[in-house]
Amino acid sequence: MSASSFLRRLFGGGPGSADGAVQQLLRLCDALIAESSEYTNTALAREAVDAYEALDAAGREQFFDILARDYSPSPDAVMQSASAYHAEPSPANRERLFASVEPPRQELFRRLNMAPGGTAALVEMRKEVLDGLRAKPHWAVIDGDLMHLLRSWFNRGFLRLERIDWRTPAIILEKLIEYEAVHAIQGWRDLRRRLEADRRCFAFFHPQLPEEPIIFIEVALTRTMSAHIQPLIDINSPVSAANCDCAMFYSITNCQEGLRGISFGNLLIKQVAEELKREFPHLRRFATLSPLQGFRRWLEQKRVEHPKELAMLGKLDQSDWHQSEVPDALQRMLVRLCAHYLLRAKRGDQPLDPVARFHLGNGAALERLNWMGDISETGMARSAGLMVNYVYWLNEVERNHERYWRDKEITASPAVEKLARECVLAAPAEKGAAA
Amino acid sequence: MSASSFLRRLFGGGPGSADGAVQQLLRLCDALIAESSEYTNTALAREAVDAYEALDAAGREQFFDILARDYSPSPDAVMQSASAYHAEPSPANRERLFASVEPPRQELFRRLNMAPGGTAALVEMRKEVLDGLRAKPHWAVIDGDLMHLLRSWFNRGFLRLERIDWRTPAIILEKLIEYEAVHAIQGWRDLRRRLEADRRCFAFFHPQLPEEPIIFIEVALTRTMSAHIQPLIDINSPVSAANCDCAMFYSITNCQEGLRGISFGNLLIKQVAEELKREFPHLRRFATLSPLQGFRRWLEQKRVEHPKELAMLGKLDQSDWHQSEVPDALQRMLVRLCAHYLLRAKRGDQPLDPVARFHLGNGAALERLNWMGDISETGMARSAGLMVNYVYWLNEVERNHERYWRDKEITASPAVEKLARECVLAAPAEKGAAA
Amino acid sequence: MSASSFLRRLFGGGPGSADGAVQQLLRLCDALIAESSEYTNTALAREAVDAYEALDAAGREQFFDILARDYSPSPDAVMQSASAYHAEPSPANRERLFASVEPPRQELFRRLNMAPGGTAALVEMRKEVLDGLRAKPHWAVIDGDLMHLLRSWFNRGFLRLERIDWRTPAIILEKLIEYEAVHAIQGWRDLRRRLEADRRCFAFFHPQLPEEPIIFIEVALTRTMSAHIQPLIDINSPVSAANCDCAMFYSITNCQEGLRGISFGNLLIKQVAEELKREFPHLRRFATLSPLQGFRRWLEQKRVEHPKELAMLGKLDQSDWHQSEVPDALQRMLVRLCAHYLLRAKRGDQPLDPVARFHLGNGAALERLNWMGDISETGMARSAGLMVNYVYWLNEVERNHERYWRDKEITASPAVEKLARECVLAAPAEKGAAA
Amino acid sequence: MSASSFLRRLFGGGPGSADGAVQQLLRLCDALIAESSEYTNTALAREAVDAYEALDAAGREQFFDILARDYSPSPDAVMQSASAYHAEPSPANRERLFASVEPPRQELFRRLNMAPGGTAALVEMRKEVLDGLRAKPHWAVIDGDLMHLLRSWFNRGFLRLERIDWRTPAIILEKLIEYEAVHAIQGWRDLRRRLEADRRCFAFFHPQLPEEPIIFIEVALTRTMSAHIQPLIDINSPVSAANCDCAMFYSITNCQEGLRGISFGNLLIKQVAEELKREFPHLRRFATLSPLQGFRRWLEQKRVEHPKELAMLGKLDQSDWHQSEVPDALQRMLVRLCAHYLLRAKRGDQPLDPVARFHLGNGAALERLNWMGDISETGMARSAGLMVNYVYWLNEVERNHERYWRDKEITASPAVEKLARECVLAAPAEKGAAA
Repeated sequence: MSASSFLRRLFGGGPGSADGAVQQLLRLCDALIAESSEYTNTALAREAVDAYEALDAAGREQFFDILARDYSPSPDAVMQSASAYHAEPSPANRERLFASVEPPRQELFRRLNMAPGGTAALVEMRKEVLDGLRAKPHWAVIDGDLMHLLRSWFNRGFLRLERIDWRTPAIILEKLIEYEAVHAIQGWRDLRRRLEADRRCFAFFHPQLPEEPIIFIEVALTRTMSAHIQPLIDINSPVSAANCDCAMFYSITNCQEGLRGISFGNLLIKQVAEELKREFPHLRRFATLSPLQGFRRWLEQKRVEHPKELAMLGKLDQSDWHQSEVPDALQRMLVRLCAHYLLRAKRGDQPLDPVARFHLGNGAALERLNWMGDISETGMARSAGLMVNYVYWLNEVERNHERYWRDKEITASPAVEKLARECVLAAPAEKGAAA
Repeated sequence: MSASSFLRRLFGGGPGSADGAVQQLLRLCDALIAESSEYTNTALAREAVDAYEALDAAGREQFFDILARDYSPSPDAVMQSASAYHAEPSPANRERLFASVEPPRQELFRRLNMAPGGTAALVEMRKEVLDGLRAKPHWAVIDGDLMHLLRSWFNRGFLRLERIDWRTPAIILEKLIEYEAVHAIQGWRDLRRRLEADRRCFAFFHPQLPEEPIIFIEVALTRTMSAHIQPLIDINSPVSAANCDCAMFYSITNCQEGLRGISFGNLLIKQVAEELKREFPHLRRFATLSPLQGFRRWLEQKRVEHPKELAMLGKLDQSDWHQSEVPDALQRMLVRLCAHYLLRAKRGDQPLDPVARFHLGNGAALERLNWMGDISETGMARSAGLMVNYVYWLNEVERNHERYWRDKEITASPAVEKLARECVLAAPAEKGAAA
Repeated sequence: MSASSFLRRLFGGGPGSADGAVQQLLRLCDALIAESSEYTNTALAREAVDAYEALDAAGREQFFDILARDYSPSPDAVMQSASAYHAEPSPANRERLFASVEPPRQELFRRLNMAPGGTAALVEMRKEVLDGLRAKPHWAVIDGDLMHLLRSWFNRGFLRLERIDWRTPAIILEKLIEYEAVHAIQGWRDLRRRLEADRRCFAFFHPQLPEEPIIFIEVALTRTMSAHIQPLIDINSPVSAANCDCAMFYSITNCQEGLRGISFGNLLIKQVAEELKREFPHLRRFATLSPLQGFRRWLEQKRVEHPKELAMLGKLDQSDWHQSEVPDALQRMLVRLCAHYLLRAKRGDQPLDPVARFHLGNGAALERLNWMGDISETGMARSAGLMVNYVYWLNEVERNHERYWRDKEITASPAVEKLARECVLAAPAEKGAAA
Repeated sequence: MSASSFLRRLFGGGPGSADGAVQQLLRLCDALIAESSEYTNTALAREAVDAYEALDAAGREQFFDILARDYSPSPDAVMQSASAYHAEPSPANRERLFASVEPPRQELFRRLNMAPGGTAALVEMRKEVLDGLRAKPHWAVIDGDLMHLLRSWFNRGFLRLERIDWRTPAIILEKLIEYEAVHAIQGWRDLRRRLEADRRCFAFFHPQLPEEPIIFIEVALTRTMSAHIQPLIDINSPVSAANCDCAMFYSITNCQEGLRGISFGNLLIKQVAEELKREFPHLRRFATLSPLQGFRRWLEQKRVEHPKELAMLGKLDQSDWHQSEVPDALQRMLVRLCAHYLLRAKRGDQPLDPVARFHLGNGAALERLNWMGDISETGMARSAGLMVNYVYWLNEVERNHERYWRDKEITASPAVEKLARECVLAAPAEKGAAA
């Protein structure tokens, strides 16, 4: 309640430039940081979170501006403690150094976390900071401090894997519908189909966000490795869990914008594979059916660079090009370009394609390209209908992972390797090898 | 498993001075810090925790010595980044500064926390560091890093209050028996009595230590405020929850040595009072029956300083002094000295007595001194049998708290104030006031 | 598995007239009844339940015919044991009498209940027997035996009240959508609105049917007593739980056809009222907004009996009669007829209207008639748009209940009493009294 | 509360002979049976249960006497309805017959079960009836009615198997200490040892008695089949779950006297064996280490019948006979007599020994006799220190079970068979076969 009234009186003045509500919030924040006895902290934190949440967009902008400007470490103080530490690196000097370097923002966020719902509020706050970062690059310091804390609090040790099925509370299920980013869920009937006996869904949860999935993955149990996404997400497809020997990871979604940059996916895939292996000891293959996030965009760029060689791609300008018969030559060219895109197109020394970076970096192998794997509008627009299977061979994951990170090499099947070598854009040496 | 074999090979050499097992652990730690892709981290963390737990005392000593020496920030690097930040306090320079100042130990601990049971292992590790700190003062930097992280992870936002009763799993109950520090629990029958209908017990738990209470409090529901502890902890006392109007907090125990210095008690008392108020709306008083931790020790010191005035205390040298009749004059003197001890004896500007510091700092009021309040051997030895009632008047807690912290004043009842003024050691002015 | 193979061999012959699958089921049933050691019973029960569930409609008909014919007590044996008991009513003779009277069917059902899912199978079986009862009146004996057992197993002592909200598993929520009989739920959005902060929903569950509600009730928290159903079930109505002083029970649904005739509703209402009173101590009124199940049907009949007096009702033959202005005289007549219908129309010495029987029999009072209370198609068709409020005055329930059951009197508000007296069909004496 | 006041007034007179409190209880019972609307039943049932529980021993005796006398079916009514049914076995006549035969007691008990705690009260009531049955044989009809209902309510379909370990609530654990009948548990330390990693404990629970085990079994995981009980229940024995290949069922205890005669043990053993097989797929043997309940008693009787042949047994009259060296001849004789006792001594066509009846009837095989298997005082007194291993060979259980029940044959190992043939009491023909 008014546990901190006396402190607020102390801070009566406040930063003059901000509006009343922002000033009030800043006073609460200062009281929260100043409060040494910890007794009134929870009440203050609750008040501050409420005050923040009551701010409108302009107020939050002001608040973030001040947070970025006034709550950073003082360069003079830092210089002084660094010099002392340099002169004598004693524990006491280290403590002082650390104290001078840590921005007051960080202690503020740590104390806001004590409020009921504090963690959720900070995740949401980081989302807003990230949203505004392009226009307000100086907010990066706020982002950095939040990231530092959230990474610690969302440490994998605190996450628990939960199966999601039709017994899960509706309040969580509706969030799957809301968040699913790869293959949108069309309402409750669609969701229910995705939770039937031949499907599995798992999510990570954090104790402070009990009703919010952090990340979730959707799996189809199939006979043989799937090449096409539409049958997997067909609401009316028959349910059949018998004789499945393949687990197809067909969708993985990060739910919390405010946790961007904290990686959960690799651990999730690994734990889910172990879970599935326990439930279905006869599963022989764990594979994905994945989109090529930026293939079409990359294609367009290549057409500009190689207008002659890629002239045939002009056909793709018609939005319905795939609905009539596609010439063999075009199909051949696209598939080869796709292999080239995945194996040769780079950002630094990693693949240009973000999904490829994720799975290959986890130790998966690039197994197969699937023509007309996703004929949805989105699928045609982003990857000319092509999809990829990455395979997690459980006893090769570590080796692939090492090759990828240490040797910067991608593990791919001979068939995909061959397609890349045959690509019209392949280097001449490659083509020789391909002959 | 051997997820990190290649990394370990890279670090084959290792710090030459340490034993084989310690070297092996250090290699795992280095691999864990170096591992950038996060994929093998959980496996590495598990291995490292296992390797640490397998070390004997000598091995751990070596390990801590190296941790303190080699995993601190480099003074040169700190100096350099501090200068850069001083020259231009940009976000990027701040990031670099922060990175150079944060000891690698801290990232190591953060990653060890990913192992199953990692949090418990780190709490235990800090306990061992604290145990050795007197002999090894340079371990203070390890303690500082662990404290920094544990304070963040054991942030109150992550704690949950649970009632402890006879329905609680035995694995938790046996820990109450083990940990209770104020009035030892004599086995399961004693514990059971303390969980009957006229008693309450609450504890804080953390999601990562599900079977370990962090702190717990024992409460007796009574008619009128208790003055004596023995009836409250008598196994054979009759159970009677009818007409209770008073909640007596008679014991509060911090369970985890490794969390020393992180304060949970004030929040616990506040939440428990709210919980009890909900269950028993007719409760009129929340009070403690508390020991005086260092009264006898202080008395001995005073006897040396004022041999003549306190000559009467010589009687206390007989261990059974209280079992025959105690002269009125001695009782009067002791009670007055006790009031003086609580109200006048200081450490800095706070009370000398640690229990007084705790409750008065939380906003309680010093209500009453109880002659022969604890006649157990311990009770006689530490406080000459005296006990204190601190009262939490719910609508005065905030005011008392402010007086204590801002004005450095203790809220006490007129009766206790009077006793202090009448004390033989009171300043002459006081005595005048008392007349 | 084949635990009973030897028993089945013993019974190889079987009842000649039945088909193979039915014969096989009957053999399992006989083995189950015969099995004295109880060891193989669970396995046999599981086999028998599976065999029953695999039967088609014709097979089940055969099975029920044989169950009704061959598994009833033998008249001769009954006569004999009754005579012995009559001659000497000793405990032993009573045991024998009881054994001869209890149909073998009942022991069969008791043993089928041991199968996993046995209880659910028996509830379903009774549903099918009830469905066929009109065509097969001799199945009544099966119904009687199942009813006897189910009434015992679904004894209120075994039921538990659970709140249903948006945290409830979807598998249960979808059953609410499926079962709701009074005001149909239009999909998940509609359901969600009915579970918001200003609504409550409760259900009874039984340990053997953990995912099947037995009966559920929907409540709206409102300011003042609701007169119209449409605003209460409007998906887009604003959510507002503030200042509510009235709990409107607007729908109550029995879910299990196979438990027909076992009454849960009165207990449910009572427990829900207590639960709500605990959560909202300031609630002043517990009332229903109820349909008049058979009002229009009764009206039609009365029009035949009193063509002249009720000529005005001819207007109701136009299905859209209420969409243009309704003459005052017609409204007056309808409301008075409705009061007469509720207070005077009888079946035996109880009200003709089944909803009235239910609430008045529970001790509610007939409080108010609501013109155009339900303007849905169903509402117009069954009750000319009228709805009723029954009120549960907590400290008059018992008295009303006694008046209803002992004195055969209905407790109604003076306003409703007056309307009934003014009705065109009222007895002349009443009208006199009304003058 | 007083929901039934008017009914009680109706029954003001009451059975003249009973005391006030009993009369009051009987009036409540009559009201409960009479109450047709079910509305006030729960309140009435609660009052009746309370009134019953408040009765002293003399009051309960009166109550049971009246229950037995006045609440049985009327011989005349039975005769009449039996005749009607004999003349025409219609459903309606069957209903009437059933109604006339069912004692009002049964409906009374069914309704008492609605009270909170009703089921527990009825289980307790049956215990008291059973206790008094020898002195009051006419109470058998009460027992019969309670048994009929309890058997239906404690139908295995309603039971659930739960593992008991150190995570189990203390309120349940203390009941294990209280109830254990075979090898008494000496306090919490003993209990804890029995729940360590190399032990297992399972119990059946019923939803209406959530904190009361119905039956529990204790299992030791061992290497090779145990021959001696003392090491298994030694508090200080080392814990070792490694390489265990044998599950020893060393104690099984029925907890509820009031459920005597309702068999749970066979199902429990079967489910526990399945559970253990799942957890430890490498377990090769499920065996018991069982006492011989009546061996010494039987021996004494045989000594009277065959004084000369069994003269050697005179040594057993010294209570410490086993503490000095036991002559080989005596040991040989006792072991052979034990084999004879188990295989030849009968009650009807089943073994005289009740534990043998239980395990052999479940399909176990008599595997081995263990000299000095139980040297506790109890063990020496009941079975001269001998113990038996019964083995459950999972794929022979059914065959053994059939042999036992159909062919009246006991499955025993050749070694035990041979011992029985060599026994001094064996029939001459056997001895010939043994030569």
